Amino acid sequence: MSVVEDFDVEGAFEFAKKLAVENGEIVKVAFHKPKNVDTKSNPTDLVTETDRLVEKNIFAAIRQKYPNHKLIGEESFTGPMSLTLTNEPTWVIDPIDGTSNFVTGFPYVAVVIGLLLNKEPVFGVVFNPILGELFSARKGHGSFLNGNQIFVKKTTELNESVVLSGFTSGRNYENLAKVRGNLEAILMNPAIGIRMLGSTACAMTIVAAGRGDAYFGANFHIWDIAAPTIIITEAGGVVGDLAGEELNLMKRQIISTCTPELMRKIADKITPINPEADGSVE
Amino acid sequence: MSVVEDFDVEGAFEFAKKLAVENGEIVKVAFHKPKNVDTKSNPTDLVTETDRLVEKNIFAAIRQKYPNHKLIGEESFTGPMSLTLTNEPTWVIDPIDGTSNFVTGFPYVAVVIGLLLNKEPVFGVVFNPILGELFSARKGHGSFLNGNQIFVKKTTELNESVVLSGFTSGRNYENLAKVRGNLEAILMNPAIGIRMLGSTACAMTIVAAGRGDAYFGANFHIWDIAAPTIIITEAGGVVGDLAGEELNLMKRQIISTCTPELMRKIADKITPINPEADGSVE
Repeated sequence: MSVVEDFDVEGAFEFAKKLAVENGEIVKVAFHKPKNVDTKSNPTDLVTETDRLVEKNIFAAIRQKYPNHKLIGEESFTGPMSLTLTNEPTWVIDPIDGTSNFVTGFPYVAVVIGLLLNKEPVFGVVFNPILGELFSARKGHGSFLNGNQIFVKKTTELNESVVLSGFTSGRNYENLAKVRGNLEAILMNPAIGIRMLGSTACAMTIVAAGRGDAYFGANFHIWDIAAPTIIITEAGGVVGDLAGEELNLMKRQIISTCTPELMRKIADKITPINPEADGSVE
Repeated sequence: MSVVEDFDVEGAFEFAKKLAVENGEIVKVAFHKPKNVDTKSNPTDLVTETDRLVEKNIFAAIRQKYPNHKLIGEESFTGPMSLTLTNEPTWVIDPIDGTSNFVTGFPYVAVVIGLLLNKEPVFGVVFNPILGELFSARKGHGSFLNGNQIFVKKTTELNESVVLSGFTSGRNYENLAKVRGNLEAILMNPAIGIRMLGSTACAMTIVAAGRGDAYFGANFHIWDIAAPTIIITEAGGVVGDLAGEELNLMKRQIISTCTPELMRKIADKITPINPEADGSVE
């Protein structure tokens, strides 16, 4: 019997939602308190005590229940990344997506938990404790917001779209010139507007819930997009890399849209950015 | 007795809050329905039936209660603007700020009502019916969110700031190049991040409530900023034009920050944009 058939995925999904909500409460309480900020490489790359605590909590809970599963989390990586994805069950966790929002008090932050099997997301949970919104999806079972099924929009034209994007931390001048050019290309099409929230996971759930039409971005890591990817696809949307080709979770770039037509139109307008990958696929 | 002393400002403030909340309910109901979109000059300049209905409602209610007061509203102007501000009591109304958000289902929309006396805001109301948030301020009486007093943050450094900005509708290439350059200047300082919400009024209330540090933008109109301006200043913040000099509500440009130090630092980084004014001051 393969590892994939070896455990109750539905049970793990419920467990992940419970973990996200429980730890989201910790995030919510801390959100309103003064914070001790510890900067890593630059002031935009903020890490908080809460971020660490939440990852530690979630890792400990998963290790206890699933001692043989692999774990990938933001806080476990401080240097260059060299992940290797395998077919084993792999939990991918961002304890707080939108760390700078958390630090500054802007209400788009989320606890993000996904599970990969055979290198593909089988469920994803994105919980925003500030807005009280739990997004979740399990492969083949649809996407939900607080228990109500959600669907993407049917927009196919860029000039009917609101497009979400952003400048991630760790930005550099070369990438920024491309990001800037890409934003201009989308605006001058023109899209109805560009929205930037400072959280990749929150932006992707907005597309999943039909509150926006597309998200594109780069320079994030696998833990930012693994869970939201399945939330978008189970809501009827599509994902790809910045060229509009097949998504590779390790390549740190994504376009996610409500329709394949819109994906194509965005991919045709923008210049791909190719950050150093998070690692390789075994 | 002057017009200023001639009526009950406190009563008018309560009336404005009631109007915003009542009409916000109309906006909320319509927000979740398919919309008939009527485009004016370009696809980014959307106007909805609801926008018109809400302005009509609010104008009618104010005219009935205050027949001698002046009214300025977004929907009343379709061509070039040539407003003249006087010392008379003047209601300034944006029935739905964030029209494109309303159309696309992104939850930052607001009913915005302000009152000017002697050309200065004496109260302002910004009600976001989707998020259920009522921001209000009366001169000398503080700023409130759903009845709880709010205060700006105390951030003085750009590299500790989250800065809100945006691309407004009616964008053109020349202005866009400046907007783009300004965003880059702020990012490369670097600010912690840029956030774009697609609503000037909502962005300014975020600064007022201490959820962000600064907003700067241009190309909006007087009805977008009259009410939020007093909500920011009564919360302890400051406002100015894009050069950091005294704000003129007609000049269609603003920097609003939590502290004067941050205002100065942003003004020093950016290139002013000078759109055609909404009109003149008598």
